[in-house]
Amino acid sequence: MKVSFAKRVMIQDFQGEFVKKMLKSATSPDLIPFSGGIPNPISFPVEEMEKAAEAVLEKNGVLALQYSTAQGYLPLREFIAKRYEKKGTHVTAEDILITNGSQQALDIIAATLTDPQDDILVEDPSYLAALQTFHLYFPNIHTVELEQDGANIQELQSILKKHNPKFFYMIPDFQNPTGLTYTLEKREKVAQALKGTDTFLVEDSPYGELRFKGKQQPCLHSFLGEQCIMVGSFSKTISPGMRLGWILCTHKELREKMVEYKQLVDMHTNIFGQMILSEYLAHNDYDKHIEKIKELYRHQAETMIREMKAHFPSSVSYTDPEGGMFIWVTLPEGMTSIQLTQRAEKAGVLIAAGDPFYETKRNVRTFRLNYSNSSDEVIVKGIRILADEIRKMQEEK
Amino acid sequence: MKVSFAKRVMIQDFQGEFVKKMLKSATSPDLIPFSGGIPNPISFPVEEMEKAAEAVLEKNGVLALQYSTAQGYLPLREFIAKRYEKKGTHVTAEDILITNGSQQALDIIAATLTDPQDDILVEDPSYLAALQTFHLYFPNIHTVELEQDGANIQELQSILKKHNPKFFYMIPDFQNPTGLTYTLEKREKVAQALKGTDTFLVEDSPYGELRFKGKQQPCLHSFLGEQCIMVGSFSKTISPGMRLGWILCTHKELREKMVEYKQLVDMHTNIFGQMILSEYLAHNDYDKHIEKIKELYRHQAETMIREMKAHFPSSVSYTDPEGGMFIWVTLPEGMTSIQLTQRAEKAGVLIAAGDPFYETKRNVRTFRLNYSNSSDEVIVKGIRILADEIRKMQEEK
Repeated sequence: MKVSFAKRVMIQDFQGEFVKKMLKSATSPDLIPFSGGIPNPISFPVEEMEKAAEAVLEKNGVLALQYSTAQGYLPLREFIAKRYEKKGTHVTAEDILITNGSQQALDIIAATLTDPQDDILVEDPSYLAALQTFHLYFPNIHTVELEQDGANIQELQSILKKHNPKFFYMIPDFQNPTGLTYTLEKREKVAQALKGTDTFLVEDSPYGELRFKGKQQPCLHSFLGEQCIMVGSFSKTISPGMRLGWILCTHKELREKMVEYKQLVDMHTNIFGQMILSEYLAHNDYDKHIEKIKELYRHQAETMIREMKAHFPSSVSYTDPEGGMFIWVTLPEGMTSIQLTQRAEKAGVLIAAGDPFYETKRNVRTFRLNYSNSSDEVIVKGIRILADEIRKMQEEK
Repeated sequence: MKVSFAKRVMIQDFQGEFVKKMLKSATSPDLIPFSGGIPNPISFPVEEMEKAAEAVLEKNGVLALQYSTAQGYLPLREFIAKRYEKKGTHVTAEDILITNGSQQALDIIAATLTDPQDDILVEDPSYLAALQTFHLYFPNIHTVELEQDGANIQELQSILKKHNPKFFYMIPDFQNPTGLTYTLEKREKVAQALKGTDTFLVEDSPYGELRFKGKQQPCLHSFLGEQCIMVGSFSKTISPGMRLGWILCTHKELREKMVEYKQLVDMHTNIFGQMILSEYLAHNDYDKHIEKIKELYRHQAETMIREMKAHFPSSVSYTDPEGGMFIWVTLPEGMTSIQLTQRAEKAGVLIAAGDPFYETKRNVRTFRLNYSNSSDEVIVKGIRILADEIRKMQEEK
């Protein structure tokens, strides 16, 4: 039977095609996994979660299995609100919508704000799965260059003025893919540029809790208030498998629309998981747990940077993340990261070529390295293999 | 800040507006709850789920908390496939996509097949939350009259011919809202009408397992094969709060598009819940558990029917469901169910007026009664109150 599909699932976006090809080639467990972005299992509190599950089912079993409300479990929303409050962002549980991970949060925001041909704005490069989800709504996507300290302000101002985008999607802390963090000055300037416009700022912060060096920066919400929608997640600190993220939106009308939309697409986020996570958070030291993850990632990042310094040609540059899971590497002029990706795979190392993280740029020199899932030994081995391949590419030129 | 919303969240559909008003008035726990559609907590295997959670976290804790695949947990898909197999529907785990409850299944199907102004077909009346979700994609919705034994075949043929709809959404067993079930003859005729057309049949069967009398009928998939997409759920037999449903689609190209779409909107259904449910199913007697729910619902339905026979004026007619959770009542000519709904609420009983279940008909004489959440005593009391109100309405005419 021949199917006439909806246009939204027939989009041949570069991101999707690239990821499909990448996944096809990258299924071997023997390859060194610098291409991924999954948390280290050290961040999963398995035993504590078992206790939490037991407690919830003992005390509140019927509630945990019955239908619940679209906005999400109140005690979990309260926990999240209090955590923002502690960092100086004045919000309440009422401002929060629990989603199936931050991926659904991005989808809900885009669906609520974007009609076909509406203008939206993203960083260049940006998180590739966000780009793919935004494509579902047929927007005109504009990009703003991401500099070492945050978005290029002049370009940002010019796009805001010219296109009045529905929203500007950005990841201010340890960005995916670059690992870059906005400085305080850049945050202030971005907020200034947006103030008075009709553009929402969507501040995605999946790694925000995982700062392992440098000084915590204020979230954009603290400058922009209801003009800033924040997206958060427990995926990088407790469990991605539970699919528990959230949207923080202090703009009442917008939040209500998003809650209604959530209800239409899947009623509510699974309450079973929400209650168990909430129980876990109530009876364990979340900060101490996060400290353990940060220690590990700090060590892994330092090891990777140290090895790159020691073995990469000096013509190769890279970011030095203050947190999160990624380093962004730039090859010398004349090389492409797709070339290196192919050679590295043959030599036993997977890396994420930069191309799919850009909306339009192709054959770029940049690629992403992930360190969260590799031991010292693996990092040392993998970086040496990459260094060898880069040198060979240089010699072959 | 003024928001320019996407059109899809600005739809002022009758269903949405009606439900909002209904929810506003119906929050009191003192009112008799014949309006809802939530499962009786007897169907929640709390203790067994606690054991299953413990076992999963002991044996496979890291897997249960880590990222997983978009299509869903293989052992759970295998269990579902085997259950279809036992009923004579030849399918494999490969044909199944796990969703956040059947609500997301409906959304994924509509999103994958429907562009604005595409034609789709639903029963009249139909499940109101399905109508609302379909509206998100701006289709032309056609309706086919639901007779006592299933869809009006002549009308169905005529609409198929004239409009070539993308899909025909129907609930063949103990339909929501009517409680009606398609006879074998009607199933065959519906299948015949669809064969050779480009219209998919979407067979939603949330209550299919809950047949408490009469003979099990074959699913439409057994007549239509890959032209039939089936939607199922554990919400009515184990837990709605875990949000675990599925799409069964033996059309490979369509299924692959739906899996891709699922990945874009929320990566995957929470694996934590999927593994725990799967563990529960592997170590408990699901059929015996369902038997317990069926016994209860059979008894509740019989009590409600008995009381209606004894107390409703003979000019009131109603369906006699062979399973599921609902009875559909038709008032005498000249009365509207909205009127009765308002009067009944004042007298202490909530019922679901028929109007929002129809795509276009208004001021109808039909309404929905739910018995799954009321004791004998409450059913007896509630039906007498309704009978009184109907009589008073008759006298006032």
